[in-house]
Amino acid sequence: MDVGFIGLGRMGKAMAANLLRAGHTLRVWNRTRSAAADLEALGAKVAVQPTEAAANAQVLMLMLADDAATRAVLVGQGVLERMPREAVCVNLGTVSVAAAKELSRLAAARGVGYVAAPVFGRPEVAEAARLNIVVAGEAAAVERVRPLLAAIGERIWPVGEQPERANVVKIAGNFMIASALETMGEAAALARAHGVTAQQLLEIMTSTLFASPVYQGYGRLIAEQRYTPAGFGLALGFKDVRLALEAGGAAHVPMPFASVLRDRFLEAIAAGESDLDWSSIAELSARHAGVAAAASGK
Amino acid sequence: MDVGFIGLGRMGKAMAANLLRAGHTLRVWNRTRSAAADLEALGAKVAVQPTEAAANAQVLMLMLADDAATRAVLVGQGVLERMPREAVCVNLGTVSVAAAKELSRLAAARGVGYVAAPVFGRPEVAEAARLNIVVAGEAAAVERVRPLLAAIGERIWPVGEQPERANVVKIAGNFMIASALETMGEAAALARAHGVTAQQLLEIMTSTLFASPVYQGYGRLIAEQRYTPAGFGLALGFKDVRLALEAGGAAHVPMPFASVLRDRFLEAIAAGESDLDWSSIAELSARHAGVAAAASGK
Amino acid sequence: MDVGFIGLGRMGKAMAANLLRAGHTLRVWNRTRSAAADLEALGAKVAVQPTEAAANAQVLMLMLADDAATRAVLVGQGVLERMPREAVCVNLGTVSVAAAKELSRLAAARGVGYVAAPVFGRPEVAEAARLNIVVAGEAAAVERVRPLLAAIGERIWPVGEQPERANVVKIAGNFMIASALETMGEAAALARAHGVTAQQLLEIMTSTLFASPVYQGYGRLIAEQRYTPAGFGLALGFKDVRLALEAGGAAHVPMPFASVLRDRFLEAIAAGESDLDWSSIAELSARHAGVAAAASGK
Amino acid sequence: MDVGFIGLGRMGKAMAANLLRAGHTLRVWNRTRSAAADLEALGAKVAVQPTEAAANAQVLMLMLADDAATRAVLVGQGVLERMPREAVCVNLGTVSVAAAKELSRLAAARGVGYVAAPVFGRPEVAEAARLNIVVAGEAAAVERVRPLLAAIGERIWPVGEQPERANVVKIAGNFMIASALETMGEAAALARAHGVTAQQLLEIMTSTLFASPVYQGYGRLIAEQRYTPAGFGLALGFKDVRLALEAGGAAHVPMPFASVLRDRFLEAIAAGESDLDWSSIAELSARHAGVAAAASGK
Repeated sequence: MDVGFIGLGRMGKAMAANLLRAGHTLRVWNRTRSAAADLEALGAKVAVQPTEAAANAQVLMLMLADDAATRAVLVGQGVLERMPREAVCVNLGTVSVAAAKELSRLAAARGVGYVAAPVFGRPEVAEAARLNIVVAGEAAAVERVRPLLAAIGERIWPVGEQPERANVVKIAGNFMIASALETMGEAAALARAHGVTAQQLLEIMTSTLFASPVYQGYGRLIAEQRYTPAGFGLALGFKDVRLALEAGGAAHVPMPFASVLRDRFLEAIAAGESDLDWSSIAELSARHAGVAAAASGK
Repeated sequence: MDVGFIGLGRMGKAMAANLLRAGHTLRVWNRTRSAAADLEALGAKVAVQPTEAAANAQVLMLMLADDAATRAVLVGQGVLERMPREAVCVNLGTVSVAAAKELSRLAAARGVGYVAAPVFGRPEVAEAARLNIVVAGEAAAVERVRPLLAAIGERIWPVGEQPERANVVKIAGNFMIASALETMGEAAALARAHGVTAQQLLEIMTSTLFASPVYQGYGRLIAEQRYTPAGFGLALGFKDVRLALEAGGAAHVPMPFASVLRDRFLEAIAAGESDLDWSSIAELSARHAGVAAAASGK
Repeated sequence: MDVGFIGLGRMGKAMAANLLRAGHTLRVWNRTRSAAADLEALGAKVAVQPTEAAANAQVLMLMLADDAATRAVLVGQGVLERMPREAVCVNLGTVSVAAAKELSRLAAARGVGYVAAPVFGRPEVAEAARLNIVVAGEAAAVERVRPLLAAIGERIWPVGEQPERANVVKIAGNFMIASALETMGEAAALARAHGVTAQQLLEIMTSTLFASPVYQGYGRLIAEQRYTPAGFGLALGFKDVRLALEAGGAAHVPMPFASVLRDRFLEAIAAGESDLDWSSIAELSARHAGVAAAASGK
Repeated sequence: MDVGFIGLGRMGKAMAANLLRAGHTLRVWNRTRSAAADLEALGAKVAVQPTEAAANAQVLMLMLADDAATRAVLVGQGVLERMPREAVCVNLGTVSVAAAKELSRLAAARGVGYVAAPVFGRPEVAEAARLNIVVAGEAAAVERVRPLLAAIGERIWPVGEQPERANVVKIAGNFMIASALETMGEAAALARAHGVTAQQLLEIMTSTLFASPVYQGYGRLIAEQRYTPAGFGLALGFKDVRLALEAGGAAHVPMPFASVLRDRFLEAIAAGESDLDWSSIAELSARHAGVAAAASGK
């Protein structure tokens, strides 16, 4: 298929590479051109303007950082306007419910399909083409892009025709991860304060009742207080908590855990820790309990 | 081994049966005698007084509901005083950190060993002898009772010599479960408010990032709003949240998630829902968001 | 002085009337013209377009509902652009810190002064010209408008040259009121649950330690569960809590009480109570405790 | 009247002195005898045992630190048992709802009246005989002790016949004060983060909407970050928050603000600040926002 691909961060690059490997024709664009070099070597054409990536694409895929970046490209730089009618725009990024509604409306007005397809998985998972992809959009459009999604993910989870539904699932999922981080942080502080190491506690829990990727992966980081380099930075994590609160606010859903998380992230950011991994919010529990120093070599 | 076993609720009965099957000699006691009938059929001797179960035991195992019940038997009914010197008391129940410290001190004063061995697992897991057992106590005492623990559990997790450490792990673990319940409740309310069913959301999350027993088991209950009969009642759940808060309070550990949980349980109890499964706290999120009725056939 | 006045809700009308009584010349504008009738009778000229109210004014005063309404008039309808250079724009409304920064920047670019002058006081207080006015802006501009502020308020509280500082004070103040409402709600629920009426508790507290306008006025409403007609509606109250959270978020200030308040307001809105007085959030405490019905004739 | 008075901390001493000045006969007792010297000079007899203070008293007044101290004297040291039948025990201290119920029951069993009469006011207020006294107990008993209460307080607030009702009012009132502290702390942190000093904000608010003793007194301490010497220590404040949570817990009253307060106090205690004034919890907001150092000379 003729695919345009915009947004070549570590996630985007991994996905684009897998699309090339699956035999698709790609025209890629990134704000800083250097990110495209590896893909050029794999056979991608590199566009100078984002509109070039979109102009002849049957499907345009986007993997941008947030609402603002996505709007800037699709609307500000005129990409949506240059897409061929009947083409489909696949937004793989984590954007707000409000942005999903707005962008799908704009796409429809232009005669372009819009599929929301946010992904779960860290960069390594993207590289291995083992992402979990939540998909929502009109059935025909989803069918058309399914082979592309199959090339980058392990499993596709359709959740209906309204694109923003996929975004709600992604946002709810990230909230669940953030809650798990805080939960482990509080539990570990409680354990430490009574002489049990975070390592002891988390090894037991994540080998048994909580034997799942999120708890095991982040449990290890928390037990070892290894928050740098950040796999997923605290500032991005805060963005996700805000997306949950905004989606909740718009639909009148009180979320007391999300409110606690917001305050945690703000405190960590105020302490200058934006660049640590978001699992480092677990340290706040230890710090507030006065058990941080004792337990760590930091 | 000659074992006394006190406390024959559904969990206790399952454990005692497994000890009998492993060839140990049991003298059992329960407040209401009828609970002992099945075990008698399996070869247990049934004591009329709890002291009888303890008087000649090498090891006395307890599986009682809470601090009060445990103190009532060990101290109030004079069981500890009647135990032979050098015998070991194994407390399998979920008691407070404070109670563990007090009881182990009393046992030591009497020349009796004290091993804290709280278990993770629902009754079916106990019946299958697949419990996870967290163990703390003096090394020699732990060694002595290890064959008994091996007969009732799948895995033994030693966490040191001070008995209360095992209790902290159990309490922290139960707090983690309660947090997972609230997390799923908030996430499901957010999803529903935006047109995604709890079922859709939780199936995706618990098949992937959260593919662990706690999330899968309780996720199903929450998705189906199936809170009765209660596997683990809300009133017991509240007890566990309180144990976490008390252990935190004693060691100056702020736990904002645990504080939110406390208020959730209180609200559910005030609403007359003490007999539902504790996962029903997830409904409060739906109710507060005004999405409870729409989503359920309750 | 030649004054333009835009925004004739109940608060704006009262202020404009007091300016007329103090001998100033007013050209007024409101989205719905009917609101201007009373002022016309007092001698005001009624503009057909907002730009007319601004075109010859030495000072333009605004009392609009929120950021959006204020921006729509000043920027969207071109009012700022039509103001004479050297004129001063006085924003009496409750807008966000971000809006204050943006609008004062735009005004400066246009050569117009900008004074933030949000007010504390309900409509009756505005009618009696007894408002408390928090003022921030360049000293010269503040001096120029001081006679106008003196005509509508009892006391002027200058807080510096950067306009948004006045808005922060207003936002912090409204947060403090909302916190007092929640505090009285929780305290009253606790009292009721133990046989003391809200009336008994609040009369004692607001006659003694809490003998201040906010506690006495709202304490009465809460004690009598008299939430309609709304003096200040719940939806507006939610706006103010959000302004506090946004100002906090922008500067990395965790505010756990504000977070609790947000969830309270969302729950009340989800329950269809947006039109009640904002003090009605106190009822949520009663409802969650199961003491609402017993205590009220609702 | 013949009065026994037990508990001569700064509050108790001031009250006892006022009783002496009003012409009553006092027999006083305190754990450390030295505290009684001043009262002896004023004419009090000093008992060597607490039972002596009670044995011939028509009314026994208690002003002890907490449940434990009160129980230790009344029950542990046999004071209740030595009181003459028909005498009345007046508990001026801040005890739990549960303790009030238990002690009044024990008193009734002994044929002794029990009046709960907790007081609002700092030591200076007690010295000036201007306390606010909340009173509950059987009408006849309350009538009998009224002249004594009149001698130590400015106003008496009767709230019914069940003693614990007075305690609930006291506990709810102290919760309201603690909430005001946290509210000012968060508001001040928000203000500081945007360039407004705590002093500026709190002066405005406590001169106007919040012009009440609690806000003015504590507002000053917070604005000046003057937390030592403690007028009311943080550890005592934590006790009061716990009393509110316990009373709430017993009657199923969720109190999210009280839950936030609990975590605040725990964090301050973990930071070694138990001896500061309880208003110092306001500093936690500043610290979490990263504005503490900038604003203070601490």
